[in-house]
Amino acid sequence: MSRELSFCTQHKVEFFDVDSMNVMWHGNYVKIIESARCYFLENIGYDYKKMKEDGYVFPIVKMNFKYISPACFGDFLEVKTTLVDYDIFLEFSYELTQAKTQKKVALASTHQVAVKINDLSTQLAMPAQFLKAIQTYKDHL
Amino acid sequence: MSRELSFCTQHKVEFFDVDSMNVMWHGNYVKIIESARCYFLENIGYDYKKMKEDGYVFPIVKMNFKYISPACFGDFLEVKTTLVDYDIFLEFSYELTQAKTQKKVALASTHQVAVKINDLSTQLAMPAQFLKAIQTYKDHL
Amino acid sequence: MSRELSFCTQHKVEFFDVDSMNVMWHGNYVKIIESARCYFLENIGYDYKKMKEDGYVFPIVKMNFKYISPACFGDFLEVKTTLVDYDIFLEFSYELTQAKTQKKVALASTHQVAVKINDLSTQLAMPAQFLKAIQTYKDHL
Amino acid sequence: MSRELSFCTQHKVEFFDVDSMNVMWHGNYVKIIESARCYFLENIGYDYKKMKEDGYVFPIVKMNFKYISPACFGDFLEVKTTLVDYDIFLEFSYELTQAKTQKKVALASTHQVAVKINDLSTQLAMPAQFLKAIQTYKDHL
Repeated sequence: MSRELSFCTQHKVEFFDVDSMNVMWHGNYVKIIESARCYFLENIGYDYKKMKEDGYVFPIVKMNFKYISPACFGDFLEVKTTLVDYDIFLEFSYELTQAKTQKKVALASTHQVAVKINDLSTQLAMPAQFLKAIQTYKDHL
Repeated sequence: MSRELSFCTQHKVEFFDVDSMNVMWHGNYVKIIESARCYFLENIGYDYKKMKEDGYVFPIVKMNFKYISPACFGDFLEVKTTLVDYDIFLEFSYELTQAKTQKKVALASTHQVAVKINDLSTQLAMPAQFLKAIQTYKDHL
Repeated sequence: MSRELSFCTQHKVEFFDVDSMNVMWHGNYVKIIESARCYFLENIGYDYKKMKEDGYVFPIVKMNFKYISPACFGDFLEVKTTLVDYDIFLEFSYELTQAKTQKKVALASTHQVAVKINDLSTQLAMPAQFLKAIQTYKDHL
Repeated sequence: MSRELSFCTQHKVEFFDVDSMNVMWHGNYVKIIESARCYFLENIGYDYKKMKEDGYVFPIVKMNFKYISPACFGDFLEVKTTLVDYDIFLEFSYELTQAKTQKKVALASTHQVAVKINDLSTQLAMPAQFLKAIQTYKDHL
């Protein structure tokens, strides 16, 4: 059975997202993929609040972007967020496309590690609670 | 003796601060006055870290802006931050001018209240530690 | 006939909106009311793109906030955006409430002026195109 | 003669940079490296304004981050910005360290392409004006 799971979300490019070249400022894509990732985690029943209750935070340790075509004020972007791996790192990939034209806008990926809040120790495996949430979600697909 | 105390700081308008009208986006002034206010508090020896150690946070309860002339990418802005009052509210006013031309750019003000972290109770007076820090600073002027 | 027109929008508090006190950073409310205002203008058929085509920009000249209760990560905020006046200034007021509990979160207001792009002259009246858009919208209510 | 050129800048971690985990939000590093890159370009005499006058913009097409240790409110970060290559892409690398302890905080890189403003054509070489600015700067080292 495949480990790959995806969710799609939509995001509007706001006036405050756009820079003096009239396109979304490249740094604002970080917000869009974070919003998409949080939506993913909520939907599998394991969001940041749950993580914290279980005693973990999941800082980003790696982030890559490839920008393909610009996004403008008022555009709607679709983000397909895929859980690529969750062995040592919680790894997501993101495909951003124009909702109207399906034109590809950007690709991105993030790696997160689980860190125990009480002693700040980096974990070399995902917490049991996360694995259980994923399994429960997959069982109900 | 006057209760008024002022500090001046300088802030560069960065590329990411500027919107599609080629001027600093009005919301980004909030960052500049926060940076100026933190500098003020550090200099009187009572910054956010000290507040937290003493068991208080100081949320903003009111904020006003008047925008007079635009600021552009690469401009240096001077901010004169004045402690206007600290009876019930910690009240600051801010004057923003172009460093080069002294042209007035914006005026702003903020009101903060002291909130006890342990029970989230709003205080009707500044904490004793804050009053002492202010007094010590003034005595050494 | 009343000049008042209102629209309601909903906004999620994202992880990147929240500060180290675990509440939405006060400066991020500026984004929420801008998003709400843009939605309003789109709906009456006179958004920023149309303004620009007609040769005008509408910079913010005044902005006020009153913060009543905090918003946390994952909260949904409702914004009721009301066009208060459009004689000399385009004046909007905003009421922010928790979507779930209807608890009041913040109040805000903004004033904008019309500025002609070609000569940067400040107008003392709203452009005819704006007045027409408002009238057309009201006639169809 | 080496093509490598470096500049060092310093950046303060502000209150608004910090997230609910009490560390600089990973997306805010994008601002710090942009500020550092602009400083670099100003110093070799070829900043964004000059680029625009010459008819070019330089959008980011690739951006990578590796986060090594967190940065907290009030920390000062040093950024060493190095021009790695400028054949087809304008490629910079960034090393971020704690100013006080020299502890490594993050590594990053960006790739930009030159795009002609008048026809939006992507250039496969750096504009002559850029090459001249770099050469002039190197000749005076």
